[in-house]
Amino acid sequence: MKTETSPSTYCNGVDAESLRNTIAFLGENLDKAQFKFRARNRWIDGSLNEATIDSFHALGEEQSHEHAHVVQADQPALILGKDVAPNPVENLLAALSSCIATTTIYHAAANGETIEALSSELEGAIDVQGFMGIDPEVREGFNEITVKVKARSSANRERLMELISKSPVLDVLRNGTKVAVTVETDR
Amino acid sequence: MKTETSPSTYCNGVDAESLRNTIAFLGENLDKAQFKFRARNRWIDGSLNEATIDSFHALGEEQSHEHAHVVQADQPALILGKDVAPNPVENLLAALSSCIATTTIYHAAANGETIEALSSELEGAIDVQGFMGIDPEVREGFNEITVKVKARSSANRERLMELISKSPVLDVLRNGTKVAVTVETDR
Repeated sequence: MKTETSPSTYCNGVDAESLRNTIAFLGENLDKAQFKFRARNRWIDGSLNEATIDSFHALGEEQSHEHAHVVQADQPALILGKDVAPNPVENLLAALSSCIATTTIYHAAANGETIEALSSELEGAIDVQGFMGIDPEVREGFNEITVKVKARSSANRERLMELISKSPVLDVLRNGTKVAVTVETDR
Repeated sequence: MKTETSPSTYCNGVDAESLRNTIAFLGENLDKAQFKFRARNRWIDGSLNEATIDSFHALGEEQSHEHAHVVQADQPALILGKDVAPNPVENLLAALSSCIATTTIYHAAANGETIEALSSELEGAIDVQGFMGIDPEVREGFNEITVKVKARSSANRERLMELISKSPVLDVLRNGTKVAVTVETDR
């Protein structure tokens, strides 16, 4: 929730005063804390498809992005694609990496802790016998993901780990979530 | 693994013969089925950061994308960003949507099942009391994700559901995975 604040309230490039106001507002208006995020996907051809993101639900109201965002996915030539975009599991790692960054930056800003630099390297291991249907005992997804974070910050290592652990995508990847899938065919 | 095939072996825009050859090859060379995918992230300012994806490990060797792919993440103005890109949880939904599409298309192609059109709409619900630290009992991530898939295909609804269930990202989101995080500070 953007409110009028002077640049001096910024921390890590985040309007920390507005952030604290938003947290306080939601603490007193719990019915407005139910957010919904969305994406819709259109298959183009072969390994190429694109997701469009334009609306979400926040603070009890329907909201729009300033303009629609498009995220493409493809496969490298070795996995029979044209390599015009990352593949879906790479996009998953990208989402995790960005969530860890944003979570750390926002939580640090809300507490007046400065971060001067923040980067990470992620690697996820998949035994593709699962996806390829070679061995039904092997899972389809990542067996393990490693995340190496580097930071220059007023916060120490233990504190940064605490901030990182608040990441919504990290929570979903570590603990799983309910995913309800329905399919409709038009013939 | 790309092999020389004629266009007539294509199904759903995928080189189905090469795909079947790859599956057969990996079935006989299980040591080459351990793939690794990667992303590295650099925080830019405030809510803006970007992930770069350029290398991966597949078929027992280090591999490179044709060029580096960059995936940005930001936040909408309401969440104190500049809205130049989707936010991390929206990118997570995009990754799930693209993985469902690619998985369906590839598995159908490998089995000679045609898909003429494929789209999906995803929505994920988050109670931001968790992320905001208002209620420690509330999880940070999505409580539930709904995925509505629409298809025009030679495969029926039940078969499409079976193909979708092979999605690596869907597996990770439903069942969780191990995520090992380390932090290094440079002061």
